[in-house]
Amino acid sequence: MQQQIAVITLGISDLARSKSFYQKGFGWNPVFENAEIAFYQMNGFVLGTWLKSSLEEDTKQQGLPPQGAVTLAHNVARERDVQVVIDKFVSAGATLLRQADAPSHGGRRGYVKDPDGHIWEIAWNPVWPIDQEGHVTFAN
Amino acid sequence: MQQQIAVITLGISDLARSKSFYQKGFGWNPVFENAEIAFYQMNGFVLGTWLKSSLEEDTKQQGLPPQGAVTLAHNVARERDVQVVIDKFVSAGATLLRQADAPSHGGRRGYVKDPDGHIWEIAWNPVWPIDQEGHVTFAN
Repeated sequence: MQQQIAVITLGISDLARSKSFYQKGFGWNPVFENAEIAFYQMNGFVLGTWLKSSLEEDTKQQGLPPQGAVTLAHNVARERDVQVVIDKFVSAGATLLRQADAPSHGGRRGYVKDPDGHIWEIAWNPVWPIDQEGHVTFAN
Repeated sequence: MQQQIAVITLGISDLARSKSFYQKGFGWNPVFENAEIAFYQMNGFVLGTWLKSSLEEDTKQQGLPPQGAVTLAHNVARERDVQVVIDKFVSAGATLLRQADAPSHGGRRGYVKDPDGHIWEIAWNPVWPIDQEGHVTFAN
């Protein structure tokens, strides 16, 4: 079966705040939006930000904690961009979880959480190629 | 800034169980693994399954709930494949959260959770194209 994930959906509590955060923090714009969801065209898949109440209704799971043991990494092309993006995120309303530093496996990374509690890693990984469409390939 | 997520990392408690589950449920094989993480090459990004204790240490967040308000959708090419994949998932150790049915916005979908609590949507979406590399494009 294809090693494929078509959509990552994040539960959010305020769609306008979420859109504003991703716009200010990343410069990302939705490809579609209505009153309860925004979709972003990503690198080979779609990111959805959906009202948590609707996500809970659709999955039939009530009271999901906002943030679980999941992280989403945005990789940058240059080491110094890690701090630039973290600073933009924080000024857009994110909370710093870990100041950027160099992990033992190489590169550089820090962690922030967005206004809904989702954990983002901002990373520079000099080994994994990123093409012009943002497609990322594992390498070691 | 590129609308790009390079890595989705899921916290897991037992790497062998997780690998076995993804192998039996999806037929997915890691491109890399060591004692605490497995990486899967996906459609334009990398999926990591990492021991939750290591993920918590790296993010400096202790006691993350296993499952938050996040879902990952695997899209299938034919409507009848939704049930086939859900059945495979359940026989591989997943828990059914929502039996597949047709949502008002079209298509067909059901939800399961994997042995670590991460929520997977298995969906047939006849509108969004999937190319041979698994790259998915928003359309409406």
